[in-house]
Amino acid sequence: MKIRLFITGGTIDKVYNQSNGELEFDKTHFPEILSRARLEVDLLIEQLLLIDSLDMVDADRDLILERCIKCEEKHILITHGTDTMCETAKLLGQGSIDKAIVLFGSMVPYAVNGSDAFFNFGCALASLQLLEPGVYISMNGRILPWDDVKKNKSLGIFHTLNP
Amino acid sequence: MKIRLFITGGTIDKVYNQSNGELEFDKTHFPEILSRARLEVDLLIEQLLLIDSLDMVDADRDLILERCIKCEEKHILITHGTDTMCETAKLLGQGSIDKAIVLFGSMVPYAVNGSDAFFNFGCALASLQLLEPGVYISMNGRILPWDDVKKNKSLGIFHTLNP
Amino acid sequence: MKIRLFITGGTIDKVYNQSNGELEFDKTHFPEILSRARLEVDLLIEQLLLIDSLDMVDADRDLILERCIKCEEKHILITHGTDTMCETAKLLGQGSIDKAIVLFGSMVPYAVNGSDAFFNFGCALASLQLLEPGVYISMNGRILPWDDVKKNKSLGIFHTLNP
Amino acid sequence: MKIRLFITGGTIDKVYNQSNGELEFDKTHFPEILSRARLEVDLLIEQLLLIDSLDMVDADRDLILERCIKCEEKHILITHGTDTMCETAKLLGQGSIDKAIVLFGSMVPYAVNGSDAFFNFGCALASLQLLEPGVYISMNGRILPWDDVKKNKSLGIFHTLNP
Repeated sequence: MKIRLFITGGTIDKVYNQSNGELEFDKTHFPEILSRARLEVDLLIEQLLLIDSLDMVDADRDLILERCIKCEEKHILITHGTDTMCETAKLLGQGSIDKAIVLFGSMVPYAVNGSDAFFNFGCALASLQLLEPGVYISMNGRILPWDDVKKNKSLGIFHTLNP
Repeated sequence: MKIRLFITGGTIDKVYNQSNGELEFDKTHFPEILSRARLEVDLLIEQLLLIDSLDMVDADRDLILERCIKCEEKHILITHGTDTMCETAKLLGQGSIDKAIVLFGSMVPYAVNGSDAFFNFGCALASLQLLEPGVYISMNGRILPWDDVKKNKSLGIFHTLNP
Repeated sequence: MKIRLFITGGTIDKVYNQSNGELEFDKTHFPEILSRARLEVDLLIEQLLLIDSLDMVDADRDLILERCIKCEEKHILITHGTDTMCETAKLLGQGSIDKAIVLFGSMVPYAVNGSDAFFNFGCALASLQLLEPGVYISMNGRILPWDDVKKNKSLGIFHTLNP
Repeated sequence: MKIRLFITGGTIDKVYNQSNGELEFDKTHFPEILSRARLEVDLLIEQLLLIDSLDMVDADRDLILERCIKCEEKHILITHGTDTMCETAKLLGQGSIDKAIVLFGSMVPYAVNGSDAFFNFGCALASLQLLEPGVYISMNGRILPWDDVKKNKSLGIFHTLNP
């Protein structure tokens, strides 16, 4: 099974910029993350974007959709900021692509103590290999379909529409 | 879905003992790991053992088998040392238990830099929720059935019998 | 030797707030830091402030000065944001207090990967025990007197006035 | 001020070997540690040994002594395993070298969670710059002269002969 991992940014890849004290993007951590995971899967990283998901515009989502359709792999992982992850999942889900696609991200950056990033990547990668074609979000240890998932911003968790 | 997590020990839970400079067991890290993972699944931890899997004897494996059969949950995770994980998986697999059971561990302790533990837990937990009844090992980002998995000790990876 | 550690905030104590994605203050990490350092010195923590040093006003600095004068210890450590650390050091230095006072902080929060915080605390604590009365800043592995220190904001380092 | 840092090994530099589950030496972490510390001091690393201090023999200590005498720097740091750090300090102290020499190490490896290594390096480096010529051990946030220091193995701390 060949897997494509699309990087789009989001909290998971933010790092501390000591010049201005802000969390910003420098480069993706996924080459390091893959190595640490001791992966024995056939996975190819491709960076599409490296932005905050609140800054994503239609053209960004169209790019993600297009790359999902056009890439040769049938199994796709997408890193994504949590704030608009459900929106992108919906666009992809409505696209009726005959591939398994799992979006994930993290509540705390990979580079910050107590991050959920490495765990979330494990959940997304394992579920991707077992799911039927469709679009899913994997967060909080669960795998939720694109048309039954919502982020509760005050709690910082993803749940079904009628939990 | 209710999930039972059986703790048996293994590298994943070892910690550095500064008195003698050895890696030993103190207590399981899983309460901390669950919290960090921001889990929204119904999971109950039960510690059966806290030992090196090279020290596991038949009575230990019988205990694991018995608890897998008797616990009320139909979905079971088991932490296990990697050295004899395949043996325990085989015993459970031959037991024909009508439950989904996933064993996992780590090559590097959770408490040591560069550990694969948190990722492996994600893989195991996510796959457990999607797998048919059966016994599986989840390591290196893959999910392998008990009767087609082997540890390559020199490479430190798990693969199928005929990779 | 009795040492007083005044907490005032700064980057060193910032943590990631997953609700808004900002680095903010929650509580000081110093109880945890002291424990990790395996200290065998007589040190008492006192939290005066927990703010960004860019938000410090005259009243805040007056409070620090007053507590330095009035506390019974002759050896004082002060955590401080780096942006205005030199200003506070100058106020204390001009106060002609007959005590050894060392200010320190960090370029990266203690809770973020690659932080210099734990090292800087070691430098500050060790130098404090050896210095004559006076006011000093300890950053980048150096100990600089209050009247010959400046932060180079573009490089993110502290140096003497004529390096 | 030019500083020489002699690496000899000890717990501080041990790493987990996932092949055999042991803590062993691979290479020193100090290039990484120096970078993380954002040092602005003139410091040169030289690796003399990379061994457990329980395995140190007379020839090893003679090498350390000789290099301390012969190197051009007047300020020397030495990483050392804690078990026989006092012995090596004694040999150097009795050598009446007219240089400031500070030995340090850690109770927990730099690469293991909760390590004291980075703090201890800070203490050693800062005190070295302020001390008169002599041989000292810096551990637990203190700086102790070679002829008044002892390791309490059961507590894992260094103290004076008559604490």
